Amino acid sequence: MRQQARIVDVAALAGVSAGTASKALNNTGQLSPATRERVRRAAEQLGFTPDTRGRALSSGRTYTVALLTTDSSGRFSIPIMRGVEDVLSAGELATILCDTRDDPLREQHYLRSLVARRVDGIVVTGRRTEPRGPIDVPLPVVYALAASTDPDDASVIVDDAGGAASVVTHLRGLGRERIAHVTGPANHRSATERAHAVIEAAGSAFLGEPLYGEWSERWGRQSVDQLLRSAPDAITCGSDQLARGVCDRLRELGKSVPVDIAVTGYDNWSVMAEASRPPLTTVDLQLEELGRRTATLLLDAIAGDPHHGVLELPTHLIPRESTLGMS
Amino acid sequence: MRQQARIVDVAALAGVSAGTASKALNNTGQLSPATRERVRRAAEQLGFTPDTRGRALSSGRTYTVALLTTDSSGRFSIPIMRGVEDVLSAGELATILCDTRDDPLREQHYLRSLVARRVDGIVVTGRRTEPRGPIDVPLPVVYALAASTDPDDASVIVDDAGGAASVVTHLRGLGRERIAHVTGPANHRSATERAHAVIEAAGSAFLGEPLYGEWSERWGRQSVDQLLRSAPDAITCGSDQLARGVCDRLRELGKSVPVDIAVTGYDNWSVMAEASRPPLTTVDLQLEELGRRTATLLLDAIAGDPHHGVLELPTHLIPRESTLGMS
Repeated sequence: MRQQARIVDVAALAGVSAGTASKALNNTGQLSPATRERVRRAAEQLGFTPDTRGRALSSGRTYTVALLTTDSSGRFSIPIMRGVEDVLSAGELATILCDTRDDPLREQHYLRSLVARRVDGIVVTGRRTEPRGPIDVPLPVVYALAASTDPDDASVIVDDAGGAASVVTHLRGLGRERIAHVTGPANHRSATERAHAVIEAAGSAFLGEPLYGEWSERWGRQSVDQLLRSAPDAITCGSDQLARGVCDRLRELGKSVPVDIAVTGYDNWSVMAEASRPPLTTVDLQLEELGRRTATLLLDAIAGDPHHGVLELPTHLIPRESTLGMS
Repeated sequence: MRQQARIVDVAALAGVSAGTASKALNNTGQLSPATRERVRRAAEQLGFTPDTRGRALSSGRTYTVALLTTDSSGRFSIPIMRGVEDVLSAGELATILCDTRDDPLREQHYLRSLVARRVDGIVVTGRRTEPRGPIDVPLPVVYALAASTDPDDASVIVDDAGGAASVVTHLRGLGRERIAHVTGPANHRSATERAHAVIEAAGSAFLGEPLYGEWSERWGRQSVDQLLRSAPDAITCGSDQLARGVCDRLRELGKSVPVDIAVTGYDNWSVMAEASRPPLTTVDLQLEELGRRTATLLLDAIAGDPHHGVLELPTHLIPRESTLGMS
């Protein structure tokens, strides 16, 4: 391990006082360009890194943002965090990930701790899309994926209805005219919102009622026998896991996907969508972009210019063999 | 949003000076138990939270630890981080997650930033098990999952050989006598180490050579025809994804798992191991425990008592229907 350079080492090498070295590196004070340049070179040569804590105390900021999530698997929060980091790390802010494990007590513990640490702001996210109650902290907050129930808060969410409608448009464009739908629990907003959008977009091409169940491959497989009774030429699914189960069961019954029946997923979760046989046409939630937009709104709020209301971002349809029929 | 209570508010409510209030809350100075108790109640009543930045400056610590990871999916780093947090949050340390995206430049950027922020310590982890070069920072560091190549560093890793051997012991105990193995790339340590351990543990019950390929369900399916030529009664796989592919292909060929052939996975990745038909007997890497042990070693190092060398933790065999034959 190497010793960490101090400001006095930089000053000595540059032949100036520590105060002058500090001013040069912070771009303050009245110094000649030549002196600033000499100090900057000395700092570079010694690998000197300024003390963020000192800066934090003088500015009242810690240059840290927390991402509070209920998504323990990281499936949704990790891509959102990547997007948040893209924006924040350009401004040299660090991101703390706090996993509440869906436990209100743990959430309260984290919030107290974050307030005590004087973080600059908080992103609240999770694995569900239901609007959630606002958190009560004297800090800038932006909600991602699940909106806050307080319309005065700023939230960035996915246009789930638009994503489901884009699937139907894609299928109709391929000539499919008998569209069925299977999805997760009827008390999950992500299930009902996608189902209603499919029904509305499909119009008279929609068959019967959406089938509600659990978010699993097994329910996808089990639902097939019931779905086949109405002789669909396309089965739209509320998730990639469901679509994978549907494809497996159709293959076992000797039906060809997509020649006999086209199948679509939702989420673009690569371990499901790409491993499915055939690979799934699905809806990408653009979670990194959601993270980037969330971070941008949070930076505005930290700068004293908070936004209000819900920003809904578009999804992106990914066409693959389960509707296109290449293999 | 509520206003944040200040130490002067607590002092006013308790009827003492701010200095006395501070001493009472920090358990310093010469105060009567009654005064301490009065201040503590006032702080509780106002929801007062101490300013961690002030504490950081006086102690030279920031009460923050960074987890530097190359595992962008979060599949390995999220459970490790949960374990790290279990230990650190009890001591009121926050954890910053830094995803290097396997990019050396990004890793260097993060390290400079973490040194500048004066974090208390760093956990280095990733998705591969190959030993990696040490990072060069003047801070306590512990390596998790992948060991440091410097024997003077402290590393906590998984006993992959022991895990693979436990699979063979399980299969032999069930009377299996013809054991084959399929796994990932021959240049991945996790593939070769598990394969060698299976060969050694199986002895004369091992058939032919291990089959190396890619970490995918597809390679699992493709490998089956070649594996069947030596008529195995058990196929051990280097990952759950491979085992799932093996099970799917065996079913398509009309072979029963486990009656005809037992199949085992590795990782206990629930979306693969539990969704497989049948569910997979597999090896759990105990990543949360690995995170907890890593954090404990890091706390010792932060306290000035660093460990050296490699700590290898045991895995845990999870028996399911792919060897036990219940359904």
